Parts: sequence; structure tokens; C-alpha cells
Amino acid sequence: MASTEHFTTATSEMDEEKEAPPPQDLTLGWVRDALVRQEDSIVFALIERARFPYNAPAYDPSLLPQQGGRSLVEAFARGAEVLQAKFGRYQNPEEVPFFPDDLPAPSVIPYNFPEVFHPASAYVTENNAIWNMYFNDLLPLFTVEGDDGNYTSTAAADLVCLQALSRRIHYGKYVAEVKFRDAPQDYMTAICAKDRDALMKLLTFEAVEEMVKRRVLKKAMVFGQTVTLEDKTFDDETKYKVDPAVVARLYDEWVIPLTKDVEVEYLLRRLD
Amino acid sequence: MASTEHFTTATSEMDEEKEAPPPQDLTLGWVRDALVRQEDSIVFALIERARFPYNAPAYDPSLLPQQGGRSLVEAFARGAEVLQAKFGRYQNPEEVPFFPDDLPAPSVIPYNFPEVFHPASAYVTENNAIWNMYFNDLLPLFTVEGDDGNYTSTAAADLVCLQALSRRIHYGKYVAEVKFRDAPQDYMTAICAKDRDALMKLLTFEAVEEMVKRRVLKKAMVFGQTVTLEDKTFDDETKYKVDPAVVARLYDEWVIPLTKDVEVEYLLRRLD
Repeated sequence: MASTEHFTTATSEMDEEKEAPPPQDLTLGWVRDALVRQEDSIVFALIERARFPYNAPAYDPSLLPQQGGRSLVEAFARGAEVLQAKFGRYQNPEEVPFFPDDLPAPSVIPYNFPEVFHPASAYVTENNAIWNMYFNDLLPLFTVEGDDGNYTSTAAADLVCLQALSRRIHYGKYVAEVKFRDAPQDYMTAICAKDRDALMKLLTFEAVEEMVKRRVLKKAMVFGQTVTLEDKTFDDETKYKVDPAVVARLYDEWVIPLTKDVEVEYLLRRLD
Repeated sequence: MASTEHFTTATSEMDEEKEAPPPQDLTLGWVRDALVRQEDSIVFALIERARFPYNAPAYDPSLLPQQGGRSLVEAFARGAEVLQAKFGRYQNPEEVPFFPDDLPAPSVIPYNFPEVFHPASAYVTENNAIWNMYFNDLLPLFTVEGDDGNYTSTAAADLVCLQALSRRIHYGKYVAEVKFRDAPQDYMTAICAKDRDALMKLLTFEAVEEMVKRRVLKKAMVFGQTVTLEDKTFDDETKYKVDPAVVARLYDEWVIPLTKDVEVEYLLRRLD
């Protein structure tokens, strides 16, 4: 375990952020950099959703009687996934659809994405849990009450949030794969015994998780501040576009645990 | 003119940012706040597009032979606008489609958006200019060369940029309307004479434009920095996700001039 102890679902601190396709010889450093960069995307997405009030009608199935009990946001997300599938979004194994059952085959020339995931583990998905968490728990925490009529823009902003969260959480597949490759013997026993608790313990590094939560809190402060030409310091009076404590809680209660769920489910299938 | 001298296409400095539906009695303060808030959205959108390399195949019509000479990004944007129109996006007069000719009627219960714009002026659009500027001029300035295969995610990120820019630039309609209402006599002569140059002069406040450019440059530095738990200061070695000078240039060469074009075209029709 020594070689991976500094690294977990949560990521360690770093100086540079960049994103590039996964190298064929997947490294901890690459996964870590990608996870850190995705924190920015998640914070931006939440801030952009918070431009709109809650907009309850977007979540009320009675707004769209002809959609068979689907809310505007669900009907929109399904339509957007169909469109994106057609143009090849889900050829990239990093992208996991929320509604995989009705997606068309892509009509573009296939791109040769590197095959990194173990085939039996590649289809692990936590998207149902992410969808429910986002709408039931998270959304009311960072939007204000109100209805400004911008339901489609709201649904589009929701989908950007959901896709960013899903991408981040399913990067747990990379985390699990790289950890397994680095030290398969550490995981074999627990995998063979289908011992979820033992795997969860092997994948948990509380100090790193604490650091990630502190960093996303800081990102929410930096990116959600009102930037003016005057210099400012952060104080208790500073108003943020999204409450930084909510972003830290999002990671604490949902992003980090769901990522570890992905890792556990991935590893359980890793020897199939 | 005295009452509007501090305000133009460009916006003055402020302490609070928020977004709310336009009040029936449209005010300078409301338009100004909305424009300042939209700077953040534009910077976020550019940073998120810059996650991907240029991805030339997304702009090459030969990738999609069955799309009749359309690039993936154009076919995707058309499909996304059809989907968004169906769910009512363009019921809001602030939202201007890039491909208005083939949009379906919305299938949602109409929302009663306030009617602020003069009817003859409401349909002014600079979206062709925005589309061409974005792909021909701006995009190569803030993306790196390369091809990572994420063409649909790239196209979706492009559309977020385009919609944010279009929204900001077409807010020129609010600017023109509020200025006209505040002092119609200042604009009457130039409108009746169809004197574009005189209108442009009336709408130009260089000191305010300079301030806006400095503020968006600062926003690109703040939002595009790599946030770590250590304290940092900005220096010449700081790397940003999007070059702040490009964001300042975007406003200088394109956003501010195109917004003023919207204002001029709006005012030219204001007495019809």
C-alpha cells in the first residue's frame, strides 16, 4: 500500500492543473490532476445554476401533460442525452448517461478512446443515486425560492451540474483501476470475499478527504465572490454566489462517498 | 444626458451582483447588475471550453457526411436549439437563437415574461456576427492545438459560450431601451436621420469601457487561477486556464462593439 497511501478518492494538493486524455500507462498523478481540475467545473456549474431561482415548475410533471408523467427537467435531460449520444458523447467511457436505455448509436466516425477500464467493471454506474441526490438534497440547498420562467435554461444548467458530478464520481473507476494495478495483492482477498466493508476501508484516507473538502470550500469562495476592481479580503460579510459550506458538504456527504461506492463496485468486478 | 452619463454598454463598478427578472420599470441599475454578473458566466464558459483542445474534427463538415455539409458543432447547435425551443427557452425575449428558421413552437405552458422591448426593435439579432467571431477569431486564441475525441462535449461547451455571449450582447436592447426612455429627446434627431455614427457616438463612453475591460481581465485572473490551500499572490509566473488578455480583447474588439451595434439597430427602429 505504501505507494498509494498519499492518494485516494479525494486528491492531494498540487501546483498545476491540466486535463489530457488518460495515458496508456495510467498514473496516480494524471487521475489526481483530473480530479482537482473537475472541482473547478463543479463549482462553476453550481454557480451558474444559482443564477436562476429554484423554478419549481421545471420539476413538476403536470407542466408537460404530454410527457407521460415526466418533469420538464427529466424530459429535457433525456432529449439532450439522445442528441449528445447521436454525436458520440458516450463513446468516451468517462461519460456515463443518466438514461442509457433509449440512446441511439452514434452517427459520427468513432474515435479511438484508450481502453483503460476492466471490461466487467466498466459499466458500473451511480447515476440514479446522483440524480436523486442532486434534485432531492442538493438543489434546495443552493438555490433561492422563486420562479423566473427560465425553465429550459434552468434544466440545461441542471444537466451541466449533473454531468460534471457524474464525471467526477465515475472517475472512481480510474482511481480503482490504478490502485488495483499498483498493488493487486492488497485488494485480492477482499474482492474474492466480496467484502465491501474491507474494500471501503482500504479506499478511505480521512486526512486527504479533509483536505479536499477544505480546497473545494476555498474554490467556492474564490469563484463565487463578487470581483471588483478594488482589492478585497474575505471576511464574514462577504457574500458568495453559492454558499461555500454547501460545496464542502456536497463533497463530504455525497461526492466522496459516491466515488468510493464506484470504486468498491468496480473492484468487486475486477477479477471477473 | 446627465442622468445616463455614468452608464453605457459597458457597465460601472458595483458591490453586489444579482440576477432577477427585469422590473416593469426598467432601471439602469438592474441592467448594469445583470451585465456585470454575465461577465462571470462568460469567463466560466471560456474556462470550461478550454478544458478541451481545439478539436478540429468538430468543425470539419466531412466528419458528418449525412449532415449536408454541416460541421458537428453546427449540427449539434441546431439540434440543441430545437430541443430548447420545444421546452420554451425562446419564450424569454432575452434568449436569441442562432438558427431561428427551423424552431418548433414550445410545448409548455407559456410563462408571462415582461414585455420590455419596443416591438419593432425586439427582433434585432447579431447572432451571425457572434457565431463567426467565436469560431473564426476567438476560439483559436484560447484553446490549445490537439484532438482528444470529445467532440460532443466540445460542441456543448461551445454552445454554452455562444449563448452566454449572445445573451450579453443582446442585453444591448435593454441598454438602448432604458437610455431612450430616460432621455428620448437625446436620440430622436439621430434616429429620424438614420444617423448610425451619431447614435454610436451617443452610446460610447470610453472611460467606462476601459473599466469593464480591466474588470473582465481581473475576473479571468481570479476564476482561471489554480486554487490551492496555500496562499498565493498573482505574479508574472501565474498560469491561467484562459489568458486574461484574451478575455480583455474579447470585450474590447467584439463584445462591446457588437453590443453597441445591437443598441444602434434597436434605436434605429425605436420610433417605428
